[in-house]
Amino acid sequence: MLRNILFKRYQSTNQAILNKFKFEQINSTSYIKNILNQVDADNFEKKELLINGWIEKKPSKVKKDLFQTKLRDNQGNLLTVIGNKEQLKGIQVEDCLQIKGNLKLRADKLFSNEDIENFELKLNYLKVLNKVDSPVPSYTTTLESPDLIQEKYRFLQLRTPKYAKMLQTRSKLKNVVRNYLEDELDFIEVETPLLFKSTPEGAQEYLVQYDDDVSNKSNLYYALPQSPQQFKQLLMGSGVSKYYQFAKCFRNETLRKDRQPEFTQLDMEISFGTGKEVMEIVGEVVNKCWRTYYGSKKPLFTLGSNNKVITVEKESDIKRLNYADVMAKYGSDKPDLRIPIKLINMKEFGAKAGLTNPVFNNFEIIHLPNLIKNENDLKSIKTWLLNKEHYLDQSRKPIIHGILTQHDLDYWNEAFADVANIESPKLVSRSLNMKIGDVIIGSDREADNFVFENPTPLGKMRNILYQSDLPLLNDYLNKNYPKLKEDIVSWIVNFPMFSPVVNSEVKRIQGYPNYNVGSVEATHHPFTMCQLDHIPLLQKQLVNDIKLHELLFIKSQHYDLVINGIEVGGGSTRIHDHDLQSKIFAKLLNISLERQTELFGHLLDAFKMGCPPHSGFAIGWDRFLSILLNEKTIREVIPFPKNNKGVDMLFGSPSKIEKS
Amino acid sequence: MLRNILFKRYQSTNQAILNKFKFEQINSTSYIKNILNQVDADNFEKKELLINGWIEKKPSKVKKDLFQTKLRDNQGNLLTVIGNKEQLKGIQVEDCLQIKGNLKLRADKLFSNEDIENFELKLNYLKVLNKVDSPVPSYTTTLESPDLIQEKYRFLQLRTPKYAKMLQTRSKLKNVVRNYLEDELDFIEVETPLLFKSTPEGAQEYLVQYDDDVSNKSNLYYALPQSPQQFKQLLMGSGVSKYYQFAKCFRNETLRKDRQPEFTQLDMEISFGTGKEVMEIVGEVVNKCWRTYYGSKKPLFTLGSNNKVITVEKESDIKRLNYADVMAKYGSDKPDLRIPIKLINMKEFGAKAGLTNPVFNNFEIIHLPNLIKNENDLKSIKTWLLNKEHYLDQSRKPIIHGILTQHDLDYWNEAFADVANIESPKLVSRSLNMKIGDVIIGSDREADNFVFENPTPLGKMRNILYQSDLPLLNDYLNKNYPKLKEDIVSWIVNFPMFSPVVNSEVKRIQGYPNYNVGSVEATHHPFTMCQLDHIPLLQKQLVNDIKLHELLFIKSQHYDLVINGIEVGGGSTRIHDHDLQSKIFAKLLNISLERQTELFGHLLDAFKMGCPPHSGFAIGWDRFLSILLNEKTIREVIPFPKNNKGVDMLFGSPSKIEKS
Repeated sequence: MLRNILFKRYQSTNQAILNKFKFEQINSTSYIKNILNQVDADNFEKKELLINGWIEKKPSKVKKDLFQTKLRDNQGNLLTVIGNKEQLKGIQVEDCLQIKGNLKLRADKLFSNEDIENFELKLNYLKVLNKVDSPVPSYTTTLESPDLIQEKYRFLQLRTPKYAKMLQTRSKLKNVVRNYLEDELDFIEVETPLLFKSTPEGAQEYLVQYDDDVSNKSNLYYALPQSPQQFKQLLMGSGVSKYYQFAKCFRNETLRKDRQPEFTQLDMEISFGTGKEVMEIVGEVVNKCWRTYYGSKKPLFTLGSNNKVITVEKESDIKRLNYADVMAKYGSDKPDLRIPIKLINMKEFGAKAGLTNPVFNNFEIIHLPNLIKNENDLKSIKTWLLNKEHYLDQSRKPIIHGILTQHDLDYWNEAFADVANIESPKLVSRSLNMKIGDVIIGSDREADNFVFENPTPLGKMRNILYQSDLPLLNDYLNKNYPKLKEDIVSWIVNFPMFSPVVNSEVKRIQGYPNYNVGSVEATHHPFTMCQLDHIPLLQKQLVNDIKLHELLFIKSQHYDLVINGIEVGGGSTRIHDHDLQSKIFAKLLNISLERQTELFGHLLDAFKMGCPPHSGFAIGWDRFLSILLNEKTIREVIPFPKNNKGVDMLFGSPSKIEKS
Repeated sequence: MLRNILFKRYQSTNQAILNKFKFEQINSTSYIKNILNQVDADNFEKKELLINGWIEKKPSKVKKDLFQTKLRDNQGNLLTVIGNKEQLKGIQVEDCLQIKGNLKLRADKLFSNEDIENFELKLNYLKVLNKVDSPVPSYTTTLESPDLIQEKYRFLQLRTPKYAKMLQTRSKLKNVVRNYLEDELDFIEVETPLLFKSTPEGAQEYLVQYDDDVSNKSNLYYALPQSPQQFKQLLMGSGVSKYYQFAKCFRNETLRKDRQPEFTQLDMEISFGTGKEVMEIVGEVVNKCWRTYYGSKKPLFTLGSNNKVITVEKESDIKRLNYADVMAKYGSDKPDLRIPIKLINMKEFGAKAGLTNPVFNNFEIIHLPNLIKNENDLKSIKTWLLNKEHYLDQSRKPIIHGILTQHDLDYWNEAFADVANIESPKLVSRSLNMKIGDVIIGSDREADNFVFENPTPLGKMRNILYQSDLPLLNDYLNKNYPKLKEDIVSWIVNFPMFSPVVNSEVKRIQGYPNYNVGSVEATHHPFTMCQLDHIPLLQKQLVNDIKLHELLFIKSQHYDLVINGIEVGGGSTRIHDHDLQSKIFAKLLNISLERQTELFGHLLDAFKMGCPPHSGFAIGWDRFLSILLNEKTIREVIPFPKNNKGVDMLFGSPSKIEKS
């Protein structure tokens, strides 16, 4: 009763706000493009359309009492709208509207089912659902430059066609993956915990307080997982046949380039499966996504015979490259195969390297003919290429020698005298056709089949060359060594199972890594299995005294997928034998039995109780999408990213909480 | 060269470990059932099968040199295996094997394509891939009682058919949902951040340290989100038309019954959409899942006309119940409609309630005829029903009156004299046909249309009655008031938008909630929109002085889906108007403008910049699955759950980290 009285009293007021919340419902499937597909050329003008959307362009006068504007509907289509002055009065960019009207073919166009741009909508009715009442940042008024929108207005950025398409693509490709894995291969998706155990060895983890009290009196912490590695291995021990998940992962390393504190990984693992089977699945996933997005217009390429690029039709086309070979040929385990710059090993020219550091007994060069004209050219190139920004990770710089005089040419070897001895420099320079104007970039690296400095100085230089904004260098490379246009994928296999530990405490001598003599770490992670024919070699190390040299020869069953010089993901066959895993922990990685139980007890228990052999993989989903969409950073493919300090400018996180 | 020498030297050793890692690869699709479908009755014995799996049953002798065991393959099928003594020597339960053999029809069976139990496999070859070398807990030797397996061996539990099926169902139903939302309705899935902003008002959040250092010197924290509510509303402001996500949510309330610190929510939101549209989608999702799992054998039911149960064929069949009506009829906003116990409001019998607390002016009873025989019966029933375990949440207890004598019958009202006055008790007892042996449970509750104590004492009692392990009560209810067998779903609508704040600081007087006079909180969350015809009433409150009584009459556009007395999920149409949202924050919820910007600035900004009207929903995915699979706790449907203290016994998290 009271309600009725109250209602009557206020019913006539505030029509404006009521209007905002009352609107006609649109059937989900009836947006413009669909309607265009359903009507024929003669009839489409008769049907009145109801459309929701935003004003993309401020109304402008076309003739007396006829105004034109553009509406972006909630599917991202742009539609020209025609109305009179009264109808479009006060309408602003980004106002949220509901309109009704009839479609007309534009005077200058022919009928086409395909292109909404050929049509315009004659307004019958317009209703403002939400009026922009904030000074929208001026550069957003056209939304043509989403890059300039401030991070705190990410939601405006996401309204633009580029980002709307990104969101759709990200969703659609996940579904392509799921349908393939679930429907064709019987994978099941399993969700694994995000509140995991802290393993202080990692040092890159985010700690979560168990108490909700800031002071966390209990000193109890969860940690957010860096990957579901241990969960998925346990799932294999749990009898799951084929597992996958789009998993959230966390790494507290905000100062590294193009990393996000949280990211998504397409994680998978199969029991009773080998690496070969996993690689087939992963290759197929990647190729399916690529073809779904690009069709046949822009397929993935790989290296065929003769190192010519060929289209990837099926996974088995994807070139397998050996770790040792790519380290020798490209100086990196994730070589950008689009780059035509070659590393020339000077061994065949009689170079004796290892002068400064005997382990580094290869001398190799990059030869760039006819690059410089004078001292200034050389200086600018050296300044760019050796810029300390490129070497923040303390990696070694190569030596750059510019040939500007006959002496520079005849005694080119002197520039490299510290690292290599070349007996007949003139013979070599003639052989390689060195000339005045050339630039030689040279460095030493470790023995073949035993390269752990990764990338090598020249491997790194191959990439740096192409990041330049120096016109001299850019023009030269574009003309003489243009990067291939094709997107090139390859597998990298036959990795060493262990790597020497680099001692970061000891200052590097001339930049060489200081290896801790006698101790090793897992090249990838300690759960990786060695190659089967290396089992005897591994067993010997576990039983007898460890011989570092022999240990480092052991190859693992790890495999990386690399596209355009970026590691898209990696995987391996894992250890499933309790004794072997425990001995590797104890003898090779120096983890005491007690500590093993503390850190990995769950996994070792499962190994003891009939865990099957298993293999798996993880694709960095954000990274893969950024390559696919040709974006420079993964921020562009994450709906709400953080900046490179881990700060979210939109939501204002993290925030300060004072401990009481 | 060195490698070759080393290999030769150790090649002959350690054949055992080599064996563990070498096995024949099975093509993914060729497991037993498939093969059975492909072969005919005459030919299946000729094909040798290769099968991976685990020993389910210790080999037993069937006749001289013929042993029998059971293998569980990695699809969960159980197969009888026949071999000789030598082949099965030393084989133990849960050993992980690869075997080869020929299928034979069992002597006592007829050929059938369907049932693997009709066949046995004659062993040709057996290889142990991983031998159990731990004392597997003895009760797991048959794996027939997974409930008894210790939490730390969750992986053994997951190997049992019950849990294997759960994992498959969880995955499959997610895919059913995705295909419906994406393929039929054009939803896109958007991933939202997990490192969110701390909003200390919540007090139930997990804090994540920004520093990786335990001491967290910066005092900067992220918080894990309790739901993606604000993200999804921002996505609506970002031009996303239809959003969904299986989202991870976190609540730091480990001491509440059947809660997990992390859980999964099927989260969705549509722009330019109303609650009606959302309810259609949600109802369809739930019904599709139910039918996928149960087929037509066990459909969902709802209330039809006359309150008879009817099958849910389509979403619009699902009964809409008003909040006010269910509070009056069932005393709870999530009534278990399977329970036939009725609450009798004594108003029609002339009862005058509100004696202790004038706001609580309804007196209602549950009448259980012919339940007790003597004082002992009454005592045991009272003890069970009023057990303080049920009332840990400080809710009020009803009064229980047992009728054992004529006096108890004639003056039954005296038991309730504190809360209600009944003028003619004998007239009423005759009317209701009260007899010696009956039990009357009675309590007062708030005025109709204004019930905020939820559940009411009798609403709560309806459920407690059916949780009893008291034979007397169980037998009585089973015989006289059996719970319906059907699973019953309903919508609850027309919730109050605001609720009075219960002052937990002040001690309750006789259990009644102490409402803070003059202050309210959002019944669901502060982003919920009111019903359109209540806008004038709301506006009045925002402009003039607040009148609590009028404010509490305002109904929201919130809707809950309830199955079998459990809230599966809730949703609403949201506020998208900046002024309205900000005024509600400021005037009704006492959030200053400054604090609004700090907490919700991102959302208020989006509202100012053309955010469309929008509505959404969230289904508690774990809870829904636990209802579907008829499990008592959500732990049963989570792959790696934590216990009710938030402790993970398998991984040992959280763990202690000493601050330095």
